[in-house]
Amino acid sequence: MVEPTAPRILVLHGPNLNLLGQREPETYGSCTLAEIDASLNELALELGASVDCRQSNHEGGLVEAIHSALGSSDGILINPAAYTHTSVALRDALAAVALPAVEVHMSNVYARESFRHRSFLAPICVGTLCGFGARSYLLGLRALIDYLNLHPR
Amino acid sequence: MVEPTAPRILVLHGPNLNLLGQREPETYGSCTLAEIDASLNELALELGASVDCRQSNHEGGLVEAIHSALGSSDGILINPAAYTHTSVALRDALAAVALPAVEVHMSNVYARESFRHRSFLAPICVGTLCGFGARSYLLGLRALIDYLNLHPR
Amino acid sequence: MVEPTAPRILVLHGPNLNLLGQREPETYGSCTLAEIDASLNELALELGASVDCRQSNHEGGLVEAIHSALGSSDGILINPAAYTHTSVALRDALAAVALPAVEVHMSNVYARESFRHRSFLAPICVGTLCGFGARSYLLGLRALIDYLNLHPR
Amino acid sequence: MVEPTAPRILVLHGPNLNLLGQREPETYGSCTLAEIDASLNELALELGASVDCRQSNHEGGLVEAIHSALGSSDGILINPAAYTHTSVALRDALAAVALPAVEVHMSNVYARESFRHRSFLAPICVGTLCGFGARSYLLGLRALIDYLNLHPR
Amino acid sequence: MVEPTAPRILVLHGPNLNLLGQREPETYGSCTLAEIDASLNELALELGASVDCRQSNHEGGLVEAIHSALGSSDGILINPAAYTHTSVALRDALAAVALPAVEVHMSNVYARESFRHRSFLAPICVGTLCGFGARSYLLGLRALIDYLNLHPR
Amino acid sequence: MVEPTAPRILVLHGPNLNLLGQREPETYGSCTLAEIDASLNELALELGASVDCRQSNHEGGLVEAIHSALGSSDGILINPAAYTHTSVALRDALAAVALPAVEVHMSNVYARESFRHRSFLAPICVGTLCGFGARSYLLGLRALIDYLNLHPR
Amino acid sequence: MVEPTAPRILVLHGPNLNLLGQREPETYGSCTLAEIDASLNELALELGASVDCRQSNHEGGLVEAIHSALGSSDGILINPAAYTHTSVALRDALAAVALPAVEVHMSNVYARESFRHRSFLAPICVGTLCGFGARSYLLGLRALIDYLNLHPR
Amino acid sequence: MVEPTAPRILVLHGPNLNLLGQREPETYGSCTLAEIDASLNELALELGASVDCRQSNHEGGLVEAIHSALGSSDGILINPAAYTHTSVALRDALAAVALPAVEVHMSNVYARESFRHRSFLAPICVGTLCGFGARSYLLGLRALIDYLNLHPR
Amino acid sequence: MVEPTAPRILVLHGPNLNLLGQREPETYGSCTLAEIDASLNELALELGASVDCRQSNHEGGLVEAIHSALGSSDGILINPAAYTHTSVALRDALAAVALPAVEVHMSNVYARESFRHRSFLAPICVGTLCGFGARSYLLGLRALIDYLNLHPR
Amino acid sequence: MVEPTAPRILVLHGPNLNLLGQREPETYGSCTLAEIDASLNELALELGASVDCRQSNHEGGLVEAIHSALGSSDGILINPAAYTHTSVALRDALAAVALPAVEVHMSNVYARESFRHRSFLAPICVGTLCGFGARSYLLGLRALIDYLNLHPR
Amino acid sequence: MVEPTAPRILVLHGPNLNLLGQREPETYGSCTLAEIDASLNELALELGASVDCRQSNHEGGLVEAIHSALGSSDGILINPAAYTHTSVALRDALAAVALPAVEVHMSNVYARESFRHRSFLAPICVGTLCGFGARSYLLGLRALIDYLNLHPR
Amino acid sequence: MVEPTAPRILVLHGPNLNLLGQREPETYGSCTLAEIDASLNELALELGASVDCRQSNHEGGLVEAIHSALGSSDGILINPAAYTHTSVALRDALAAVALPAVEVHMSNVYARESFRHRSFLAPICVGTLCGFGARSYLLGLRALIDYLNLHPR
Repeated sequence: MVEPTAPRILVLHGPNLNLLGQREPETYGSCTLAEIDASLNELALELGASVDCRQSNHEGGLVEAIHSALGSSDGILINPAAYTHTSVALRDALAAVALPAVEVHMSNVYARESFRHRSFLAPICVGTLCGFGARSYLLGLRALIDYLNLHPR
Repeated sequence: MVEPTAPRILVLHGPNLNLLGQREPETYGSCTLAEIDASLNELALELGASVDCRQSNHEGGLVEAIHSALGSSDGILINPAAYTHTSVALRDALAAVALPAVEVHMSNVYARESFRHRSFLAPICVGTLCGFGARSYLLGLRALIDYLNLHPR
Repeated sequence: MVEPTAPRILVLHGPNLNLLGQREPETYGSCTLAEIDASLNELALELGASVDCRQSNHEGGLVEAIHSALGSSDGILINPAAYTHTSVALRDALAAVALPAVEVHMSNVYARESFRHRSFLAPICVGTLCGFGARSYLLGLRALIDYLNLHPR
Repeated sequence: MVEPTAPRILVLHGPNLNLLGQREPETYGSCTLAEIDASLNELALELGASVDCRQSNHEGGLVEAIHSALGSSDGILINPAAYTHTSVALRDALAAVALPAVEVHMSNVYARESFRHRSFLAPICVGTLCGFGARSYLLGLRALIDYLNLHPR
Repeated sequence: MVEPTAPRILVLHGPNLNLLGQREPETYGSCTLAEIDASLNELALELGASVDCRQSNHEGGLVEAIHSALGSSDGILINPAAYTHTSVALRDALAAVALPAVEVHMSNVYARESFRHRSFLAPICVGTLCGFGARSYLLGLRALIDYLNLHPR
Repeated sequence: MVEPTAPRILVLHGPNLNLLGQREPETYGSCTLAEIDASLNELALELGASVDCRQSNHEGGLVEAIHSALGSSDGILINPAAYTHTSVALRDALAAVALPAVEVHMSNVYARESFRHRSFLAPICVGTLCGFGARSYLLGLRALIDYLNLHPR
Repeated sequence: MVEPTAPRILVLHGPNLNLLGQREPETYGSCTLAEIDASLNELALELGASVDCRQSNHEGGLVEAIHSALGSSDGILINPAAYTHTSVALRDALAAVALPAVEVHMSNVYARESFRHRSFLAPICVGTLCGFGARSYLLGLRALIDYLNLHPR
Repeated sequence: MVEPTAPRILVLHGPNLNLLGQREPETYGSCTLAEIDASLNELALELGASVDCRQSNHEGGLVEAIHSALGSSDGILINPAAYTHTSVALRDALAAVALPAVEVHMSNVYARESFRHRSFLAPICVGTLCGFGARSYLLGLRALIDYLNLHPR
Repeated sequence: MVEPTAPRILVLHGPNLNLLGQREPETYGSCTLAEIDASLNELALELGASVDCRQSNHEGGLVEAIHSALGSSDGILINPAAYTHTSVALRDALAAVALPAVEVHMSNVYARESFRHRSFLAPICVGTLCGFGARSYLLGLRALIDYLNLHPR
Repeated sequence: MVEPTAPRILVLHGPNLNLLGQREPETYGSCTLAEIDASLNELALELGASVDCRQSNHEGGLVEAIHSALGSSDGILINPAAYTHTSVALRDALAAVALPAVEVHMSNVYARESFRHRSFLAPICVGTLCGFGARSYLLGLRALIDYLNLHPR
Repeated sequence: MVEPTAPRILVLHGPNLNLLGQREPETYGSCTLAEIDASLNELALELGASVDCRQSNHEGGLVEAIHSALGSSDGILINPAAYTHTSVALRDALAAVALPAVEVHMSNVYARESFRHRSFLAPICVGTLCGFGARSYLLGLRALIDYLNLHPR
Repeated sequence: MVEPTAPRILVLHGPNLNLLGQREPETYGSCTLAEIDASLNELALELGASVDCRQSNHEGGLVEAIHSALGSSDGILINPAAYTHTSVALRDALAAVALPAVEVHMSNVYARESFRHRSFLAPICVGTLCGFGARSYLLGLRALIDYLNLHPR
């Protein structure tokens, strides 16, 4: 059972991630989003935290999910997927709620097209990581919880 | 009471503006969106016009709000926020309805990150202004009503 | 009547195309979207195929429409309109479903503003065409059906 | 037999297209230029038009072929091949004769080297299409004849 | 009559603005600079402020006019015209006197040549506005007086 | 004697040209500005025109000299020298008076530093020429008088 | 009759100039190339020189015409037209024969598309001029003959 | 005790990291390199692996350290520090030994100067992470060991 | 006498190389093209190969010479001269015939104007060399024959 | 007393430097221009030289001050301030008088906005220095006098 | 004799400076490094300071020399030579030790190749100077000692 | 036996080349560095020259090796490998010793990543060649010895 003071993490999955496991397995692996969420829950429990996982294909939907974290979450773990490279709105939303955020990517974006090398979100996140497949999420969660434990509000 | 021939203005607030007052007060001030809308209503009345104020975090939602102005509004006052810099769809929507539009920003976008210096919408608006906080809206409304009075359809 | 094995084409219309016929007729012609869809149906029948036509002003809505093609369509005919130039999410969606796609534009994008010269989608489509007004759709449908007939799954 | 008032189309093939069928079949297919010309003749007849097909490896030769269209052709279907990306002279020739032109490419130029993404000709053509192999020509011919029928001189 | 504590505004008109009314009326309207100054005086009175209006075609002259504001003005309303895009000296002058400044333009600079899209002054002004013809000045004056009232020295 | 209807040409020499004959003779020749003005007078007489020659090292001085042409000159021959590459104010002045102008340079600017390859004035002049030393002025005068004779006001 | 020691000028007309008079008269005027050549002959006689005029649509043809000047011409007057912006071969040919050359353009290239602002030839010519229609040639011829008289070999 | 088949990780610290704890603590924290190495040893033991930690301020020294991994290490954890942005030699060394590598940074490089946004190494690493201070190393080690376990040689 | 199985090399000289010996000797030396061809013949004989040398100033002529190598040559030694930097057509021709090619330049192109630093052909050649004057050809021939001997078809 | 053969130095202060001591003391210190001039006089005397100090906010004024050095000064010490980054006229003036010049800046321009990193004057000066506050002038004077002593005219 | 509280300056000479006097005397003069070090010692004594001079051709060697200044030097005078333009490691080393540093160059880097116009170190130094040959060091030393005297630790 | 007057060549191998034969054989072949050095010795002997071969992974080590050539070598054959693209120090070293140098690469750098297309060294070498595997060295040695024989000191 999660303690009342355990860090609460909002996990956000960006566009097309609902297709995980079906989509380009050579790039993204065969793991489904549900399986990733399950692993995140498991690791959160192990680390004394809780996660609330959501996916949206809508930029505005992700903006609103970030807004919803105000008062209900302590940190945000986000895989902005394609919106990483095109969304100022997500950046502004993260800046607005002013919660510690960690950006993760399953693929190594630096080994892909050059337009994937720029992130609008990274400069205002605590940190970012990419390239470890589904494990990017688990590492990111661990990093975020560590950060929250070291920087209690 | 508003006269039937009074200019009807659609006021559009872009993404994250629903958080006004909560979000980065050093940049955006402590005024809420409801307070801004109230001031806009008041000024519109004073200038013999009416306003219809809406906010959306969705690019598509803003596109459709602009479409809805066809036949029901005489001009558009828009703070496109983050979509200023990334949305061709909003530009095309404004071009499609072909109504006079004024673009406003609360912060001085030229004193911020360089990606905020480019607006897809400004070239097809009547004019644009930024930097005056919540008063940017009031100045923009005044400018738009002046324009409509000088350029009756 | 359409045969069970006839190619099923998902036709997607991007933002602002719902205004066709009202919007900038000197650029886009006076044809409405419904009329275009009717022509596409007619041509599909003639070529032994079927079309399912949808429009959305939402980037996320188009992403999900593309997802819905998995298992129900054999190819995608898409006019991404403004999202052509700004959406990595649509590109990723097309890559994810891995269906043959053809990108069409009614106007000659190369004769317009320079920001319209770049398409995020074109590199992963079979082909692209622009400049023929409403007929761009018909040519694109013909091209896609030809392609599907030549490359049966 | 072609009617006197039938649209007369000049078809121009640019450099290296004489090698079609021998050259990089994985990119350009196994169809020869003679076979493409035969298909174009056939389709022209079907659509009540006529074609005059020529190939040149010389920029100046193509310029002069375009000049020769003055008074003898009603439209130009051109695959400028490599000269697409380097020839201002071809652009000026098309502008000089002021005949409706359609640019076609067999390969999807947007999926190739970045220097192939720029066309000097596209901005002054009616439209452009690429990616459909030998069928690009047939679609382009259809598009051009449609255009000429809709815009009689 | 203006009160001793009323905000004193230095209004600066940059190069070529002395020709207003004669110069490109389709771009700048038929209003003369004297008429604009009269309107500014009138509005200043209405808002309990005073204006001191000057024009110079000399970059150095404008620099020195800004210097002269030290001790005699509370804020600066400036239409730097062509020097907007080329003068670091004006920027440094504004920074040196450290008075609140508002930059205005009569035309919509974003709808003109790209070299007009960059302002050296905007980043150090309170705000900027453009596109409303002679009314840009009035809106700018209003914005500046509002600002001064909200930020008394 | 000059006829009343003879074209009146304002000749403007930009910064540093007062040093001609002293300055870098290998680049600018040994001719003085007075000698150039004398030659211009002589050629003007021969061509039935008159010239009024002025030099200024001040951007604002040149702007005002251009303004002075309104009503007193029929065309402007200008060697903007260094201001060619940095002055939007001169461009705006020429556009404001709307008189035919010809830009001349004594040196071949394209054989010098790259910052000399861009002219703010050339796009709004009738034409431009460079590289012929002091004779650039004479050719430019001839070109301008020809132009004025062909385009009487 | 031309004296044996009279300067011999090779006049070269680049691609599409054979269409002069037919081609875009609003840009290039209604004068034909034959008429321009006649004027050049006439002016050359007047100035004690002779001209040999040729036109080619082939880059290689122009290269070889330049080669042919070795030993038979004293200077080259060239309107490289579209090859101005794309041909290093013409530049190398001019450098190889090392004859004084003057580059002319009928239109003001700086008032046209940005790709026309760059000339590969200008840096190695004596000088260049543009914008005076058919008179650009006459001014250029005059400039070149002046140059040759001042710099006898 | 480490098992013979336990993954052996070479840990490389780039230039200036020997000063950790002394250097800019607001950016890099107060942890020393020895402390980081101790933590890495500890975590490696916990995860059934071993680490060999080295630091060099020399690009060539790091190149040779990478070479030394051939035959003695199974993977490389590297914080290339300043060489991230300037060293092709390190990239080539990693490519040459063809061992899985993970790139880590203590600071969030995307929140710093733009020249720190480019990594020559990232495209050929398995993945990369930054921003978590000394914990970046621990997360990177965990990621690398996971990777090695999932991809046994 | 050349053996039937000896490698047959097509040697192509690009534009202006027919002037060798006359043209800029400080850059290209005093050797003529005929002398270079003689040396190439001699070296070919010595290495058990044969050469067929051609020069053209026409891009299209070089394209067709490359085409002619199909079936008659085993490799191509090419000095594309000015077309190196501007011709996509030559690149496509080399790709089309798919014969091993070596690109040579007499001058060190990297010590010259920056537009000479880019080669369209180099990426699809076996290798390239420059800077050794007439000896560049001999080294290139040697390199090509070595390559052909090591990679027999 | 200064000897007749002592080096005479013209010291030029660019725009806004008359405000020194009042303007942004955290950037420029609290020293006034008069105090700097006094220090320069003192150091000149000590080094057996003389200085003539002038300030202008006008680009043209500075150009003319440089001209005035012809015959009356042996070298120029200049702080071009804002004109450093925008004035080709000042560069040309320095080149015209051909006197040794040293460029100084009080602030470290490389630690400020990127538009301050480019100097039009530096390439034609003997040397340049920045960042030492009022002492930049003294160091620059010393450097210039040293230079003049080592390079007597 | 140097006082215990006299400023201690570490002087660092970058790559190739050991060849001074042998290397390109027209650029660097005929002075050897030993002679420069002797002059620096002499001037330091005169100014009540001491210098410790070192040269390295190794980026890492210079990094470590900077590290060695911690606790033993009060300021750093550095001529980073070629590493100026390519070394982030040197910048980071200077930032790490946080000692006042002055960057000097013997040649005027702004009069040389464009890649020499960028310094990674300048933005974090107190100031920088270039162009005065061996005297650049002496001026830099003077500037640094002045700075240290004015900013005692 | 080598004659006393035989050209002495310093052969330098840059970073990672010590791994030749082990490293990416598909790119660099299976030949070891020792084998290459042996071939170079053999060819040098055949051509009446001698070679001294060294390899270093250190930029500074290569700089010093180049310095060591002063007085002991007549020319330098260098494969700078990764330092080609990043080292100004190597360029300066070659310029300092002022010995003829030839740059070689085993792979065709133009067929690889774009950052490998730029060489800091090429502009100051006699010539450069790439793409011929281990034979690049032999061709380069031959080219250098030829050059030295033709340009005796």
